[in-house]
Amino acid sequence: MKIPYKTYLTEEQLPKQWLNIRAFMKEKPAAMIVPSTGKEAGFDDLTPVFCDELVRQELDNTTPYIDIPKEILEYYKMYRPSPLVRAYQLEKALGTPAKIYYKFEGNNTSGSHKLNSAAAQVYYAKQQGLTSLTTETGAGQWGTALSMACAFFEVDLDVYMVKVSYEQKPYRKAVMQTYGADVIPSPSDSTQVGRAILAEHPGTGGSLGCAISEAVEKAVQTDKCRYVLGSVLNQVVLHQSVIGLETKTAMDMLGEYPDLVIGCAGGGSNLGGLVSAYMKDKLTGEGDAHFVAIEPASCPSLTRGKFAYDFCDTGRITPLAKMYTLGSGFMPAPNHAGGLRYHGMSPVLSTLYDGGFMEARSVEQTAVFEAATLFAKYETILPAPESAHAIRVAIDEALACKESGEEKTILFGLTGTGYFDMKAYMSYHNGEMRDYVPTDAELEEGFASLPNVEALGQSAAV
Amino acid sequence: MKIPYKTYLTEEQLPKQWLNIRAFMKEKPAAMIVPSTGKEAGFDDLTPVFCDELVRQELDNTTPYIDIPKEILEYYKMYRPSPLVRAYQLEKALGTPAKIYYKFEGNNTSGSHKLNSAAAQVYYAKQQGLTSLTTETGAGQWGTALSMACAFFEVDLDVYMVKVSYEQKPYRKAVMQTYGADVIPSPSDSTQVGRAILAEHPGTGGSLGCAISEAVEKAVQTDKCRYVLGSVLNQVVLHQSVIGLETKTAMDMLGEYPDLVIGCAGGGSNLGGLVSAYMKDKLTGEGDAHFVAIEPASCPSLTRGKFAYDFCDTGRITPLAKMYTLGSGFMPAPNHAGGLRYHGMSPVLSTLYDGGFMEARSVEQTAVFEAATLFAKYETILPAPESAHAIRVAIDEALACKESGEEKTILFGLTGTGYFDMKAYMSYHNGEMRDYVPTDAELEEGFASLPNVEALGQSAAV
Repeated sequence: MKIPYKTYLTEEQLPKQWLNIRAFMKEKPAAMIVPSTGKEAGFDDLTPVFCDELVRQELDNTTPYIDIPKEILEYYKMYRPSPLVRAYQLEKALGTPAKIYYKFEGNNTSGSHKLNSAAAQVYYAKQQGLTSLTTETGAGQWGTALSMACAFFEVDLDVYMVKVSYEQKPYRKAVMQTYGADVIPSPSDSTQVGRAILAEHPGTGGSLGCAISEAVEKAVQTDKCRYVLGSVLNQVVLHQSVIGLETKTAMDMLGEYPDLVIGCAGGGSNLGGLVSAYMKDKLTGEGDAHFVAIEPASCPSLTRGKFAYDFCDTGRITPLAKMYTLGSGFMPAPNHAGGLRYHGMSPVLSTLYDGGFMEARSVEQTAVFEAATLFAKYETILPAPESAHAIRVAIDEALACKESGEEKTILFGLTGTGYFDMKAYMSYHNGEMRDYVPTDAELEEGFASLPNVEALGQSAAV
Repeated sequence: MKIPYKTYLTEEQLPKQWLNIRAFMKEKPAAMIVPSTGKEAGFDDLTPVFCDELVRQELDNTTPYIDIPKEILEYYKMYRPSPLVRAYQLEKALGTPAKIYYKFEGNNTSGSHKLNSAAAQVYYAKQQGLTSLTTETGAGQWGTALSMACAFFEVDLDVYMVKVSYEQKPYRKAVMQTYGADVIPSPSDSTQVGRAILAEHPGTGGSLGCAISEAVEKAVQTDKCRYVLGSVLNQVVLHQSVIGLETKTAMDMLGEYPDLVIGCAGGGSNLGGLVSAYMKDKLTGEGDAHFVAIEPASCPSLTRGKFAYDFCDTGRITPLAKMYTLGSGFMPAPNHAGGLRYHGMSPVLSTLYDGGFMEARSVEQTAVFEAATLFAKYETILPAPESAHAIRVAIDEALACKESGEEKTILFGLTGTGYFDMKAYMSYHNGEMRDYVPTDAELEEGFASLPNVEALGQSAAV
């Protein structure tokens, strides 16, 4: 059988259930902790912030498959299946005996895989009778995806966008506004935390941590409103399992099983989804793919972080999650391009990594953009900088196969497109892009922000 | 049979030949005329400017199907087939009994259908042993598509980009540069015509006409170099027939035949391609779809233009084509957003329109962006402003069906995405977008620039 460039599933072949990888893990991700009490976060602790059904999914470590509601399936059908692509031209250009496949999630207007979870989260909010949602966005992919889903399901949306991004990426903002979202530069005077920060630092460009704090504050103080998050959480990894399920169905049709599965990792939403079906195989002994998480050298939570309880936000108002983290006080270098700049990592992936089920590597950004440019030339797709982290390692592995003569089957996740990242491409093109690797001392500063879990709740108890 | 949201052909079902609609036309498009002689342009007149094989295709009015070379087919397989989409959610939102289908050509990095002809033109240039090409670009879709194809086939490319676009769309420029193209703001000092214009108008923002003149001059004065054009020409309509051929194969699979086929029309590259298979049916009596060309009210070449010989460029250095035209001296209002601002129209489409095989309508841009925003909400795709012209009329027709109760099958061409047009979306969103319809007096000024064909060559002969 001649394997085509692109394999699309039919509508009938689309997954009708999400795969909950936690159900197959012997070592489960640790429960979240409520900072004010130091106790495990239960349903009632989380529902003031998140939708009820999403909290149920967040806490469910045992149900192996969860039905995708019909309305979400209908939404998925508008932009899914995404193609599984055989990179014939890239293989030829590299002269590698390896077979390279990628799952391309960028063919929807959000430009990334983020829409898979946005559609689900907004649907559940609508079902619960909520009328509005809040979130934060940095690079803008999540904000765009959420705006699209909110427009469709007719739920109002406030997006707190890091002020420096708001000013530097007016077109991202414009896409969200076209989809009806209210985009607010953060810090703003619409929240207490925003006003306090503005009073102290009038000229600040903001941070993701501050934007999260504002979005959470706005959500809990608004009637029929909740906060939503596009990565890190267990529920997000659950929704993103459609990527991996579709991939495996398509690969099975082609008679292929990957030796290597490579994905970029920031908060873990893409990688968690991409690996889902093959990781299940590994956990159940039905398969033995090798998984590689790729992170930026400038924000190396898996490769140089600590496995510890930490806040999910820099503002330290969220529950604590046990994850690989650089400390919520860690800030990646300002010259870092694109996303993947989160201090922590999905507890699911952190636990799998800690258990030895996954490898992690870090790459530097000029090498990433070199790979992106080569990929664009031979595969016609201009990748998102985030996705290009995975491309870099897929190319390196394919070149290693050229040396060794191995005919490995390499699968990587192409999470999105770079149309709104041209500033970074220009900086690479002009030779102005710089690499940055934090020193050990800088990492220590970040680790110093890690909370003392033992002490939590004690002051409250006094 | 339940019709899916998206229908993809398999790789084997992709067209292996282009459809040459001219072979089925009783009234053929008129031959081009060489301005210096007033005589019909033959092979030798055109090959100094265009590749040999492309000139053959340009002049071939009789071969019904032309084989697509294997290398171009392989390139097409990287981003084709494009999906045929059933707009279920839009239908539901409109409450129409009509069935709405669209062929979506925006899922490739050029963001439009332009890549179909770019790949073909660059391949033939490479085959002929050329080492470089020149072209012009305004909005940037054609320049991007050509940059992608030139990178892949390793042919150098100079893109003369209208200076005002060059300055206003730095990210379009950056995409082209990422694909290795040399992007030159026009007018430039790299050509005689550019230097002359700069000397006369030092502060000019340039025009498409000037950019064409520079690109042609550079091509004819450079060794192993030719000029390429992304619309208007017969060869381009030929290459774009893949859109219509794929559409008909997919519609046939679904048991559907369109009552209405709607496409936006600037130079005619998209519409000429979209209608190909169904127009052949109409010309041979095998089908009777109704075709509607949609143009901007600000640049109404079919609805208010003249069917006459005219220059293809404002600089008046190209051969003359017989087409519907507003005169090469006509300039659309500066507040016109997006493409579709060409003074003329493909001779193939002009001839079909003149023969009564096609209807034409014009629409105003605020109504176009209103339709674009509605479409984005329900169909998740942010359309290019050009494509949204077709959306406007598709929606209007669907609403008319709601009134009449007719269950028409409406097919329209969604040529591309609007990711690089956010400035126009912002202007619509902010209420700053204005409509503009040229007065009869303004049109008369344009018509005054039409050449006197009788007089051509006489001064040379004296």
